[in-house]
Amino acid sequence: MTQIVQPSTLPGFMELLPKDQLVFNRMKDIIRKNYEEKGFLPIDTPVLEKEEVLLAKGGGETEKQVYAFKKGSTDIAMRFDLTVPLARYVAQHYSDLSFPFRRYHIGKVYRGERAQKGRFREFYQCDIDIIGNGSLSLYNDGEIPSIIAKTFQDLGFEAFTIHMNNRRILNGFYRALGVNDSQEVLRIVDKVDKIGVDSVKEELSKIGLSEDAVEKIAEFINISGTTDEVFAALDAMAIDDEEFKTGVSELKEVFSIARTLGVSDKHMIPDMKIARGLDYYTGTVYETILDDYPAIGSVCSGGRYDNLAGHYTKQKLPGVGISIGLSRLYYQLNEAGLLKSYDDAASQCLIIPFDETKEEGLRLLKTLRDEGIRCIFYGESGKIGKKFKYADHLNVAYAIVLGQAEVESKKPKLRNMKTGEEVAMSIEEIINFLKNEA
Amino acid sequence: MTQIVQPSTLPGFMELLPKDQLVFNRMKDIIRKNYEEKGFLPIDTPVLEKEEVLLAKGGGETEKQVYAFKKGSTDIAMRFDLTVPLARYVAQHYSDLSFPFRRYHIGKVYRGERAQKGRFREFYQCDIDIIGNGSLSLYNDGEIPSIIAKTFQDLGFEAFTIHMNNRRILNGFYRALGVNDSQEVLRIVDKVDKIGVDSVKEELSKIGLSEDAVEKIAEFINISGTTDEVFAALDAMAIDDEEFKTGVSELKEVFSIARTLGVSDKHMIPDMKIARGLDYYTGTVYETILDDYPAIGSVCSGGRYDNLAGHYTKQKLPGVGISIGLSRLYYQLNEAGLLKSYDDAASQCLIIPFDETKEEGLRLLKTLRDEGIRCIFYGESGKIGKKFKYADHLNVAYAIVLGQAEVESKKPKLRNMKTGEEVAMSIEEIINFLKNEA
Repeated sequence: MTQIVQPSTLPGFMELLPKDQLVFNRMKDIIRKNYEEKGFLPIDTPVLEKEEVLLAKGGGETEKQVYAFKKGSTDIAMRFDLTVPLARYVAQHYSDLSFPFRRYHIGKVYRGERAQKGRFREFYQCDIDIIGNGSLSLYNDGEIPSIIAKTFQDLGFEAFTIHMNNRRILNGFYRALGVNDSQEVLRIVDKVDKIGVDSVKEELSKIGLSEDAVEKIAEFINISGTTDEVFAALDAMAIDDEEFKTGVSELKEVFSIARTLGVSDKHMIPDMKIARGLDYYTGTVYETILDDYPAIGSVCSGGRYDNLAGHYTKQKLPGVGISIGLSRLYYQLNEAGLLKSYDDAASQCLIIPFDETKEEGLRLLKTLRDEGIRCIFYGESGKIGKKFKYADHLNVAYAIVLGQAEVESKKPKLRNMKTGEEVAMSIEEIINFLKNEA
Repeated sequence: MTQIVQPSTLPGFMELLPKDQLVFNRMKDIIRKNYEEKGFLPIDTPVLEKEEVLLAKGGGETEKQVYAFKKGSTDIAMRFDLTVPLARYVAQHYSDLSFPFRRYHIGKVYRGERAQKGRFREFYQCDIDIIGNGSLSLYNDGEIPSIIAKTFQDLGFEAFTIHMNNRRILNGFYRALGVNDSQEVLRIVDKVDKIGVDSVKEELSKIGLSEDAVEKIAEFINISGTTDEVFAALDAMAIDDEEFKTGVSELKEVFSIARTLGVSDKHMIPDMKIARGLDYYTGTVYETILDDYPAIGSVCSGGRYDNLAGHYTKQKLPGVGISIGLSRLYYQLNEAGLLKSYDDAASQCLIIPFDETKEEGLRLLKTLRDEGIRCIFYGESGKIGKKFKYADHLNVAYAIVLGQAEVESKKPKLRNMKTGEEVAMSIEEIINFLKNEA
């Protein structure tokens, strides 16, 4: 007698039922299609890497979350993002790649985070990056919003906004204000959407900033209006800092390129509040907000960095990229009830034969499949109600019940599984009908 | 100064350059498309499972190869195939699934095998299984060859043969011969393609079989000819064993169903030599051989089993399924030089602007992308030769060099990157041309 082990997954690991998996895969396919249409090349690095390679950067919160273990005498770690593997990949295969190297990577990553709602220990990231060899033109920063916009439109969203900033603007602005620890300021400013401007001002005063500086910062992060109004306000601040000016000029060009590529101003806005990671990005930064669901936070983020792979090569490899955290996005959209509009059936038609019409049923299956119609065959015995229930469960749109009479008349009945309506049709009529419905 | 860590992957882990990854992904897409068209539903289980769940069956060679580790106090293991996760999945979600449950799963699995050429420690499996609830009709066994055949045809193969057998035939045959340890016999017989019939006979004698039994086994595994001839030979053996007769009858029906579904006899053959795993399969078994490359071994195998998930549930869940080991298949086809025929460019066209025509170039990029043409934009500065070299490296078919004269004439030159030929065309002509070429 076999002992039964309780079947269950590890806590914090997402696993979907097939009908939900269909929706998840649809989203993944839409993202992939968008990345491929823009000429990004696929890579697929191992989930397992040498620990010393994956943790070359070392330190920080991430390291504690990494799944690491020994196999024999080898120290192995599971990737926790797709950026470190990209850096290793580009450094390792440098001489075989063409630059700018446009790559996409859609894959699972692993973080042993504290389990909490909507946070997963295994999740999909969908990344694109464009890596330059020594230098990389600003054109690439400007193309990114056009890719984000098209992707989220294809995912079925019309109301979203890409918030953009440039780290040079922030560096220059805070330097001009005489702020010594701009990272501390950025950390406080980053909380403005949660705690409000007044609390931000209070905290800024606490770390010793002058009243004047605090007011200027409040004014700066509050700049709003249309894109052109924000840029006019930035110019009007007359900040006397070269890096600030360069940053503003770059951000203007990024908007200009994105506009030329068809991104509407309703989908993008300069936003002085966003900074992204504190020590990684060096130029343009992106966050994407679903306007009707701001609480979800950014659903697609990224930016420009000076040097991708400094831990693995002496080559200077600047880049710009974005990432969609698909598992989290799926989970949140599903929780918000926003995924209903996807059609989630795998098959269009179920053929239900009787014992004496199985042979005819198989022929019909072949005929319909040869015509590219997605259909399946119910080969089990059982009552007709059970068979219709199967069709309902699979969300199949049509069923063909094949009795002896239908075989003889050569006009099987096509049953609409939603309405229950049945219409006798010739095979040719069925083919034409199902092809038009598909 | 950052210390440089040598960028490298773990030994035994496959990693491809983008041009090869494109081919790999094309193969994966073809397999997926075939599985989906036949109405299989996707599942995507976690790569990490509870060790006690994954190793519920326990023992054997596999267990030594499993990547297992502790995180906190949790014993975790990486999946080593997609079958055990399927069993766990079906048992766990039993009440939410509809049976027969047709699922496909394409994903990475992990085995810490001794590293050797063409064997990988991380590799893709592409599985389909059909799981019944209590029972499962033989129709499903007969559908499998039609899926294998279409998939390998779509992968570009015409010369392949699905070898099929039925474990009941083997059980009955060896029982009728009075063989006590049929597993030992199967192990020896399995080597016939490598060591030849004479050596097999020698080994069979050594384990104590009578001369008569050895002759009968040799005759049995040598049965050849057309499908109908093989069945006639099996009938002529007049084996007096009910299980043998049931097995032959089932195998005949599987061939009959497969024929009705359009599988040509040139793509399938009954083969008494194949048995697959010794303790898992209970009925039909499949192996697929590329006729011109038999040394590769079976490229798609599987069979019928009585009970999928006995370790996780008391429900009886018979099933039938097949698996394609994609990483190994890709590697072997690539080594054999059989992958050339795939077209492996990600983009069809590269737009090369000059500094003064970047704006026009971006507009052209938008226009072509809006028409669904896969094109990219060369935004970096540099000499024209470097830009053409980039197009060549990416295997882009066409380039558009956009000088001031071309902008003014509104007739950019489309350059065929293979022939070097350049033709001035209006934007509309370029669109029509590239759409027809795609």
